[in-house]
Amino acid sequence: MRSWHDNWQEVFPKKIRETVLATLPKQHRLEELTRFYQLLGDYPHRTGKVLRGQLLLLSTTAHGGRWRHALTVAAALELFQNWVLIHDDIEDASEERRGSPTLHKLAGIPLALNAGDALHVYMWDLLLTPPVQTLPRADEILREFVWMIHRTAEGQHLDLSWIDEKRFDISEEAYLEMVTLKTAFYTVACPLRMGALCADQEPSEDLWKAGRELGVAFQIRDDVLNLSPGISYGKEFAGDLYEGKRTLILVHLFAHATADEKTELSERLGRSRSLKRPEDIERILELIERYDSLTYAQKVADNKAKAGLRQLREVAADFPEKRASATLIGLLQTLSHRNK
Amino acid sequence: MRSWHDNWQEVFPKKIRETVLATLPKQHRLEELTRFYQLLGDYPHRTGKVLRGQLLLLSTTAHGGRWRHALTVAAALELFQNWVLIHDDIEDASEERRGSPTLHKLAGIPLALNAGDALHVYMWDLLLTPPVQTLPRADEILREFVWMIHRTAEGQHLDLSWIDEKRFDISEEAYLEMVTLKTAFYTVACPLRMGALCADQEPSEDLWKAGRELGVAFQIRDDVLNLSPGISYGKEFAGDLYEGKRTLILVHLFAHATADEKTELSERLGRSRSLKRPEDIERILELIERYDSLTYAQKVADNKAKAGLRQLREVAADFPEKRASATLIGLLQTLSHRNK
Repeated sequence: MRSWHDNWQEVFPKKIRETVLATLPKQHRLEELTRFYQLLGDYPHRTGKVLRGQLLLLSTTAHGGRWRHALTVAAALELFQNWVLIHDDIEDASEERRGSPTLHKLAGIPLALNAGDALHVYMWDLLLTPPVQTLPRADEILREFVWMIHRTAEGQHLDLSWIDEKRFDISEEAYLEMVTLKTAFYTVACPLRMGALCADQEPSEDLWKAGRELGVAFQIRDDVLNLSPGISYGKEFAGDLYEGKRTLILVHLFAHATADEKTELSERLGRSRSLKRPEDIERILELIERYDSLTYAQKVADNKAKAGLRQLREVAADFPEKRASATLIGLLQTLSHRNK
Repeated sequence: MRSWHDNWQEVFPKKIRETVLATLPKQHRLEELTRFYQLLGDYPHRTGKVLRGQLLLLSTTAHGGRWRHALTVAAALELFQNWVLIHDDIEDASEERRGSPTLHKLAGIPLALNAGDALHVYMWDLLLTPPVQTLPRADEILREFVWMIHRTAEGQHLDLSWIDEKRFDISEEAYLEMVTLKTAFYTVACPLRMGALCADQEPSEDLWKAGRELGVAFQIRDDVLNLSPGISYGKEFAGDLYEGKRTLILVHLFAHATADEKTELSERLGRSRSLKRPEDIERILELIERYDSLTYAQKVADNKAKAGLRQLREVAADFPEKRASATLIGLLQTLSHRNK
């Protein structure tokens, strides 16, 4: 028998995706509901990174557990990611996701919203059935999901309310708090902790801290990627500027621009998507370049990643499975300079 | 000590609402998140019927259980109703809910959608904590929630996809299937079944059938109320026509109108909400009156209610608590001719 380590990069995403898709219904006697099931499977069928699920499985293995025991939890985490993306795409009026039009662009807001809700319940479906329920720490895992979704929704509210109120006076501290809630927990910190729980281990406080830093690094890198021309990573170039999303790049820009430039930026960024013209975006990009805000954001991402990795290496010294620990660290090392 | 029966009509809704509100957070260090918590509490603070929760508690009592043991499950059911209403109101572009503007009218679609998701998770929060988890049939209750939400989302998809595709050729059979999924399960059938489970009893098949009939009667009465002028029941008069919702009234109308009238109706009803003029609505109402479609729908509601009540009375003959059974039947008797 081959070891998990020989081909985890191929096997982990494949098995997670298979588990997700096996959870979803395919056919219904009523044609309309077969179409509904197709909507549910739309995002899960698009090829994503399956990053969170992979982190979870590697964390389980590093903590001495068996990755197969954690597979259903990893699939539930991917289902979470999928329903959240459907709803986020509506909330942010995003146009592209994983290289194709967003679900509400394809099916309209009402049907997409409802499909997101259904997918949310398929996540609970998976969490409430035997493979997960037989894990010794099933209750803790389910409570971790509840906690994680609460924090993600709070972060999303912060982000959306700043856009709604046309607030651009965001401090770096406030930005970091927002992305910790909105992204860092569900992208890295919770997957690492859930991995420990699936191995029936108590997750350490330092693992948690490392996960937060690395999760923030991931989000900042995401912001940088969105404004880096020529990088095709599944989302529309400069989509964040069209959506008016607050990023560390904008935080830095507003902290350094002149009073006149700030007024101009607020006006251009504050326009609703349909009123934004290409020259608005060009002008904002020009100012971002002038103040080197992209370089600044990338530097913060690198520092956060470095600090998180340092902490993780310390925690990992106590992990029983050394090879899995090294693989986990290796995967997280690429986060802050990934190109997709 | 007073018996539950002396003042259940006052105590049950009050206790359910208190439990719902106690579950929701109130204050956050960040002002924006305190505002978020206010959004979560908005619909729960509006005075609704609390019908589903009351049915659940009466069913528990009738099955020989104690209503206090079922209180948290009833609160979770009301939380379900609240998050679903927030999302439905977005999907249907509804303007009023319980006598006030809908949440997305107040806060915009992005913030309201996200608040609905958060409320959804507070429902699971409640279901995964001790009072519910100590019930002997906790697992079955949670699976009932999963099942119920799946069916409700399927019914909602049918309803929305017919609107989306401008389909008016809906048979009475298809309509009844849609409202069974969309309304009947979560409004009557599941509350009755959950009530039995909370009393540690196996719900009978006939209880289930009775609940379906009564739930359908409830929805048809809802459709009739919406087109009955002078009845103020918390929703905009003729809002269903503005939203283009398929109701039994329209099914009957299309089955009887002339070919020309059908073409005219499809055109007027198919207009998007912002393009519908008062004369469109007046003309549709005129045709509804000509073909007596409101009377027809009310008759179907009455028949469904009668059949459901007959079945329920038979099942209830085996319930250990006679007074609670009679009270439950009494509450359900008012469903098909209620005025709110």
